[in-house]
Amino acid sequence: MKRIKGGITAPAGFTAAGVACGIKDDEKDLAIVASEKACAAAGVFTTNKVKAAPVVATRRRVRRQGTARAVVINSGNANCCTGKKGVEDALRMVELCGEVLGIRPGEVLVASTGPIGKFLPLEKVENGIRHAARALRKNGAHDAAEAILTTDTATKEVALAETIAGTEIRLGAMAKGAGMMHPKMATMLAFITTDAVIGEEALRECLMKAVDKSFNRITVDGDRSTNDMVIALANGLAGNRKIRGGAGLKAFREMLELACSELARMIVKDGEGATRFIAVTVKGARSFAQADKAARAVANSNLVKTAFHWGSPNWGRIMASLGYSGASVRRDLVDVYLCGKRVASGGAPADFNAGKLSEALQRKEIEIVVDLNLGDFEQTVWTCDLSAEYVAINK
Amino acid sequence: MKRIKGGITAPAGFTAAGVACGIKDDEKDLAIVASEKACAAAGVFTTNKVKAAPVVATRRRVRRQGTARAVVINSGNANCCTGKKGVEDALRMVELCGEVLGIRPGEVLVASTGPIGKFLPLEKVENGIRHAARALRKNGAHDAAEAILTTDTATKEVALAETIAGTEIRLGAMAKGAGMMHPKMATMLAFITTDAVIGEEALRECLMKAVDKSFNRITVDGDRSTNDMVIALANGLAGNRKIRGGAGLKAFREMLELACSELARMIVKDGEGATRFIAVTVKGARSFAQADKAARAVANSNLVKTAFHWGSPNWGRIMASLGYSGASVRRDLVDVYLCGKRVASGGAPADFNAGKLSEALQRKEIEIVVDLNLGDFEQTVWTCDLSAEYVAINK
Repeated sequence: MKRIKGGITAPAGFTAAGVACGIKDDEKDLAIVASEKACAAAGVFTTNKVKAAPVVATRRRVRRQGTARAVVINSGNANCCTGKKGVEDALRMVELCGEVLGIRPGEVLVASTGPIGKFLPLEKVENGIRHAARALRKNGAHDAAEAILTTDTATKEVALAETIAGTEIRLGAMAKGAGMMHPKMATMLAFITTDAVIGEEALRECLMKAVDKSFNRITVDGDRSTNDMVIALANGLAGNRKIRGGAGLKAFREMLELACSELARMIVKDGEGATRFIAVTVKGARSFAQADKAARAVANSNLVKTAFHWGSPNWGRIMASLGYSGASVRRDLVDVYLCGKRVASGGAPADFNAGKLSEALQRKEIEIVVDLNLGDFEQTVWTCDLSAEYVAINK
Repeated sequence: MKRIKGGITAPAGFTAAGVACGIKDDEKDLAIVASEKACAAAGVFTTNKVKAAPVVATRRRVRRQGTARAVVINSGNANCCTGKKGVEDALRMVELCGEVLGIRPGEVLVASTGPIGKFLPLEKVENGIRHAARALRKNGAHDAAEAILTTDTATKEVALAETIAGTEIRLGAMAKGAGMMHPKMATMLAFITTDAVIGEEALRECLMKAVDKSFNRITVDGDRSTNDMVIALANGLAGNRKIRGGAGLKAFREMLELACSELARMIVKDGEGATRFIAVTVKGARSFAQADKAARAVANSNLVKTAFHWGSPNWGRIMASLGYSGASVRRDLVDVYLCGKRVASGGAPADFNAGKLSEALQRKEIEIVVDLNLGDFEQTVWTCDLSAEYVAINK
């Protein structure tokens, strides 16, 4: 597998554009990604009971037909909690996008991100769609990646190539994230394109596994924002022998997992106000579900996040969050390691070199490992620290 | 019912002291509350699976014997995750306190609050216990209330009197809180004294109900810090006819509930970095459990808390947290009111006077009311806003 240039348009047959249509002040806020050929489409959507209008529309399209040719995305407005008008506005976006691209509206997917509870400025959006459609080009990936951002400070793009059974397959991806403090409420959008020949079902299966190992590690399982979605489109232009199983499927899945995992890490690192990337591993749990609960409780604790913001080895806060996580925990069996150094042994303070640890805690990437010593299951989740900057951003 | 002076020592027969013994730098950190006569004792304890040594010791005493004559409390160190030595230290505290007070160690309860995972400086604590025992006096309530604080900025004290069946009953109380951002990890201690004649069982029943309507409104049910406890002591010196049921029990319960509810509100208002008190009511839920889940999800959302810190009527964040709360929510039925003004109707924006609302949101006490319009159940929880100051405090 190798890294290539090009982001979301790296695979054959994809073009993209990102324009400023005035939803935001003076920033790109509308993107289109299009394929010259119909694509197998798969998607993973928020499980939040309050779903934005574009999520409902896109989910229905992907599930019913499993194919698509374009995605239109706006930032600066979530089109969520906008009643009937919101549904009409989302449908108008796909209809107009289909019209200007000369494809059926049924082949267009739609996504939105931004504040909830405000009506879309539809005329601006319509002008933006017309403008973006004219601007579609092979090297428009970065513009599109910019146009989907909200409080993100940088674009998130990946492009990979891999030879599968003698044919080079390309994969491109872009995402937006931020708002990682309480991951439950961070809108996360990710779009993945590939020129691989692969059926909808295999694509969906690969995508679900990849999302589990990447985006779901930074969000509370089943508790996503109103607008989250991850979409994969495969247009088959690489002309490979269709990926169905065996080594080909494995290689494709690895490529997809790497792309998703890189985007997920970029999202955490660009969390609102984040200064540190924190990987929380809980091992020795009685089940995977318990390892997962425990790791998420630690990762979501504001007190743990602030401690690591200040580089403080306050493992007591880790113990407290394990205790309320809902996982089986026996205090006197728990070992805690920070950056590879054991700070608690059997639930009590361990001897450690405070100076060296304190140095290690200044790093940009922090590793917390908890061993519950109760079983054989393990989970790792990713989070960031909590800074005063987070509060300032979330006006 | 009337307010009286005196805090925790307002009821007949109670004395208290608070001293500085050196666990903290230059601040009071050790308190004793004592009764001249044995008391009926009741307690509510953290359900965190990681329990501090003093919680385990005190819970055992209260549950087994239901009586006590004194409580010794230190701040500056939680004596939690301290292994066998922690257990021995907690027992040494009650043993020495019993010795210097001339009562059985079995009659002494113990509580600790502060950082987790550090051994108590036992010699300092022993000196503090000796010192505090000598300092016990009728007007020592405020000293004791000071000595139990951690990041609190003010003491939390209440004293009430009520005539029950012709006899005046007095009740005094003190608490410590703070750390309200993620209430799951705030150590909360509250101590209540009364001279009422009441049995252990009736006292326990009244205490549990009062805690449910007060302290449990500011914490995630079943998810408390490692050190939380609420203790009530009744020494019977008022000489009233024993409170068993009927109007007497009702009056006593009301007094206890008022005291607990006032302390709970003081804790929220003094939350770390808090600038606003926020009451979140969810009504129209299908069950009480669902109203409770939904209200807590809103109250615990960092994004909701930051929005109200900035006085921003961002009701979309309320909708999103309802959506992941686990409660039944039908987006298109939800009404949201901020400070009495309807901002969302049927899950979509309502017409409201933004200027007036913005003024109302500058108040120190903010009211969020959500009507799910699905049923008849309702719950109110209390929280505070999230400020940059919170991050600074939690080094």
